[in-house]
Amino acid sequence: MSELIPLPQTLIPFLEPYFPNESNTNHPKKPFVTLTYAQSLDSRISAKPGTQTKLSHLETKTMTHYIRTRHDAILVGIGTILADDPKLNCRYPETKSQPRPVIIDPNAKWKYQDSTLRKICAEGKGLAPFIIVDESAGIDSESHNCVLEQGGKYVSLPLIGNTSNWAIILDSLRQLGIKSVMIEGGARVINDLLDFNKFSEKPIIDSIIITIAPVYLGIEGVQVSPSSRVDITDVKWWQGEQDSVLCGRPLQ
Amino acid sequence: MSELIPLPQTLIPFLEPYFPNESNTNHPKKPFVTLTYAQSLDSRISAKPGTQTKLSHLETKTMTHYIRTRHDAILVGIGTILADDPKLNCRYPETKSQPRPVIIDPNAKWKYQDSTLRKICAEGKGLAPFIIVDESAGIDSESHNCVLEQGGKYVSLPLIGNTSNWAIILDSLRQLGIKSVMIEGGARVINDLLDFNKFSEKPIIDSIIITIAPVYLGIEGVQVSPSSRVDITDVKWWQGEQDSVLCGRPLQ
Ligand SMILES: NC(=O)c1ccc[n+]([C@@H]2O[C@H](COP(=O)([O-])OP(=O)(O)OC[C@H]3O[C@@H](n4cnc5c(N)ncnc54)[C@H](OP(=O)(O)O)[C@@H]3O)[C@@H](O)[C@H]2O)c1
Ligand SMILES: NC(=O)c1ccc[n+]([C@@H]2O[C@H](COP(=O)([O-])OP(=O)(O)OC[C@H]3O[C@@H](n4cnc5c(N)ncnc54)[C@H](OP(=O)(O)O)[C@@H]3O)[C@@H](O)[C@H]2O)c1
Repeated sequence: MSELIPLPQTLIPFLEPYFPNESNTNHPKKPFVTLTYAQSLDSRISAKPGTQTKLSHLETKTMTHYIRTRHDAILVGIGTILADDPKLNCRYPETKSQPRPVIIDPNAKWKYQDSTLRKICAEGKGLAPFIIVDESAGIDSESHNCVLEQGGKYVSLPLIGNTSNWAIILDSLRQLGIKSVMIEGGARVINDLLDFNKFSEKPIIDSIIITIAPVYLGIEGVQVSPSSRVDITDVKWWQGEQDSVLCGRPLQ
Repeated sequence: MSELIPLPQTLIPFLEPYFPNESNTNHPKKPFVTLTYAQSLDSRISAKPGTQTKLSHLETKTMTHYIRTRHDAILVGIGTILADDPKLNCRYPETKSQPRPVIIDPNAKWKYQDSTLRKICAEGKGLAPFIIVDESAGIDSESHNCVLEQGGKYVSLPLIGNTSNWAIILDSLRQLGIKSVMIEGGARVINDLLDFNKFSEKPIIDSIIITIAPVYLGIEGVQVSPSSRVDITDVKWWQGEQDSVLCGRPLQ
């Protein structure tokens, strides 16, 4: 597609060891989890809360779509939906199947019928979302009908006030047939998962792929920083024209 | 020296374009300024205020000492002195002359006579510091004598309450014969300079060299993040065994 450029070929062998495959996706209680996002030098993923900031170069944007081809689902929090109104489809050429968008929206805030995702889906360019809501949430009936019609669903889980709800979310996705999920943000979701990974008995995040752009977004930006130290192991770096990309795995 | 390892040879051509040289050090009002530090993925330079955190791999630590060989002075803030009690000398093999340590200590808090730097200097392994204090500061007489005896000096400047004191500090260093300075931290100094660079008519920071280590230090860490956006241009990345290094210049 015109907005993407050809994938730098060195990215293919670089990324491959960090991808889900036949042998690492057979966990019965969770999909393979790839955490991926683009940050500034000062670890900001947007310049201000509630807004979207272009961070990655076209070559790393293309990389994101390539990574999407290799996952069953893409997950984001409701903060990202409200700030970015994203397409959440895969626009990489030769894409065989689209990833399933998964949205964590405990309070069912999302007016799906007004979203870009709904249009993308109506045009046959992407799948309808699975929206994870709290059991107590009152779901807007227009959004509900719209999601169902397009083949998506609402999934009610005990989210609110439940500190280990990531285990429940991931288990539920696995039971829905999702064997690999690419978690793209935003900050609350990323920080939560980095923290949760430390307390969970088995690693939650299998791979981490971070694009670092050569800019400081400044102190008012939305930052990624977990509540305490997280070491990354099996580290490799790739250097693009503008950005650097880190692949690794969080140390348990 | 035993604590360093041989410099990865690819770093030599990588760093060279960002170094001070004959033709870029003739500004009459300021030395050539290289800003350099090591950060975590979440842009922390230490895990907690007042403490030092090992961040860089031995190869990028060696790089720091190599960069020191190419500058007349090394500058840090008093926060770094009190937290790290650093040696601030150059331990790279074949070092011909030692860089001058410059400390920004407006309130003259530093008890020089108790410092590691004093010992290093007494052993002939480094130069005595130039300590930049505010004009109003009361300097402890024991520290004062000690600094003078070893060939260092106190420099009184109008620092406190003066938002453009970086221009004054740099001018003063230039008048003291310092043609190039490597500014190593801490966070207050780095953030200040990144901000000041935007408001000054001429660029203040000539080069920037950042080591990024594959770890998150967490939200309680000491963070680098200027008050607003700063773009980096002329960007190159180097990848080491563990760390990635960015070289660039802040866009005016
Ligand atoms: N650069 C990048 O790669 C990138 C990628 C994605 C997003 N972003 C940016 O990130 C920003 C959004 O980040 P954000 O932190 O505001 O939002 P977010 O992480 O997308 O969503 C946070 C919200 O999702 C819900 N949530 C997430 N995890 C939950 C859990 N385990 N349990 C219960 N609720 C959960 C909560 O909703 P409630 O508030 O209803 O409780 C929470 O406030 C935007 O500016 C966006 O542009 C950047
Ligand atoms: N990873 C790395 O590369 C690296 C490098 C260096 C330091 N560090 C870490 O950074 C931390 C220290 O950072 P920090 O922000 O606390 O301290 P800092 O930047 O080293 O020093 C800040 C202090 O210096 C004085 N100062 C600096 N610039 C000034 C100016 N233009 N005008 C007036 N006063 C000025 C002020 O002293 P007063 O408080 O007296 O006003 C200020 O509070 C430590 O934890 C250290 O380990 C890490």
